[in-house]
Amino acid sequence: MVDADLYVRVQQFYAHQMPLLEARNFEEFLRTFTEDGSIEHRPGGWKLEGRVQLLTEMSARRGDPSNPRVGEISARQARADNIPYYDGLVYRYWFDRMLIDRVEADTLRVRYQAVVSMTDATGKVSFEPTTTVEDVLVESGGELRTRSRVVTHDSPNWADKIHNPS
Amino acid sequence: MVDADLYVRVQQFYAHQMPLLEARNFEEFLRTFTEDGSIEHRPGGWKLEGRVQLLTEMSARRGDPSNPRVGEISARQARADNIPYYDGLVYRYWFDRMLIDRVEADTLRVRYQAVVSMTDATGKVSFEPTTTVEDVLVESGGELRTRSRVVTHDSPNWADKIHNPS
Amino acid sequence: MVDADLYVRVQQFYAHQMPLLEARNFEEFLRTFTEDGSIEHRPGGWKLEGRVQLLTEMSARRGDPSNPRVGEISARQARADNIPYYDGLVYRYWFDRMLIDRVEADTLRVRYQAVVSMTDATGKVSFEPTTTVEDVLVESGGELRTRSRVVTHDSPNWADKIHNPS
Repeated sequence: MVDADLYVRVQQFYAHQMPLLEARNFEEFLRTFTEDGSIEHRPGGWKLEGRVQLLTEMSARRGDPSNPRVGEISARQARADNIPYYDGLVYRYWFDRMLIDRVEADTLRVRYQAVVSMTDATGKVSFEPTTTVEDVLVESGGELRTRSRVVTHDSPNWADKIHNPS
Repeated sequence: MVDADLYVRVQQFYAHQMPLLEARNFEEFLRTFTEDGSIEHRPGGWKLEGRVQLLTEMSARRGDPSNPRVGEISARQARADNIPYYDGLVYRYWFDRMLIDRVEADTLRVRYQAVVSMTDATGKVSFEPTTTVEDVLVESGGELRTRSRVVTHDSPNWADKIHNPS
Repeated sequence: MVDADLYVRVQQFYAHQMPLLEARNFEEFLRTFTEDGSIEHRPGGWKLEGRVQLLTEMSARRGDPSNPRVGEISARQARADNIPYYDGLVYRYWFDRMLIDRVEADTLRVRYQAVVSMTDATGKVSFEPTTTVEDVLVESGGELRTRSRVVTHDSPNWADKIHNPS
């Protein structure tokens, strides 16, 4: 359990961090990660390590909401074929039930559940499979940063699902 | 960044404010706005200014959940034809990732994302296009009130979308 | 209105409590309720009183996400026929707009809105009708526990709806 000040600081950290990803502002988003920060998707997914690898992946995959939507494709296939599979979509992350523990003097473990909504140009809203997430945040120079994020998807077949069916 | 007390006060402000709108309790809802309070919808939407204009619009549009649902209509057409297009629906606002800044001694800027769920009498749930919101809150006599709300919809065609297709 | 410390404590209470239900860890979940703790569903639903009754119901109804999904069935019919109607589903609770009041020295009233998402093995996400909830929490020996939970569903036909149509 954490005190109120730290709880609010962590909430504000995410409220700053995640809109940067949604705005495709990747370089600024990745400055909220440590240099060696990682994002891993389970089960049966992949782990991206370090800002360089993360930037490469995000730049190739996140697309542009003003482009036409790509055809039906899964997350795994989009990586294999190098497809910007968020083209034509505004995606938003919804976090809930954040449980925060201080595990070392400068290190927090934050667990929460998350779901991604996708709104297309017509206004249709769909949702990716729900997930649970475990982040490690580290504090340095008065700043919080994400050192690791492990996303566990609630469907074992999440990576092979068509991510935004018509 | 704000301290924990103010963060919690703002959370509790919205937890009080928004159920009044959902309950169609418009007069009490509008008392949580300043006299000149405004709500604006972008892009390509409209701006309503002052409690009188807001009350007129809400009374005409918000309908009654125990009425039958109206036929397929967009937000823009419902305004043109003066249709209570929330008839037959319970709508709920879901807010997330509230980022709070004090911009003047008595003035806060609050940014968040929001989505509206609609549950009809059969239990079907649908969602309006996601949005981001920027509110200005002012404090007077120990009370927070909304001075302005700017809702930016994530679909450019939000106002012409059938708002709750069958 | 509550102070920041209590607000955060309540948030962390739910962030601990609800994942236990989602993990089908019923005995630990029920330890976050008082011995006589109750859950009631309105309108036209049922009230379960005490940990024993709650455990019996949850064990019979909550199923296993790795089982095949049951056919189309309503909440009411699943109780009548003793069907584990959450088989094949990962369900998550999304809470928002928590309004907390201290009603006695050791007693809190917490009101919020909630929606349940269901993700099946294919990754399909659906939502149960939205609800509002009123909990009574009591504090004893430094621990918060739920004494009662009243869930009001936003559809009058919630209990007879097919809970996760294909």
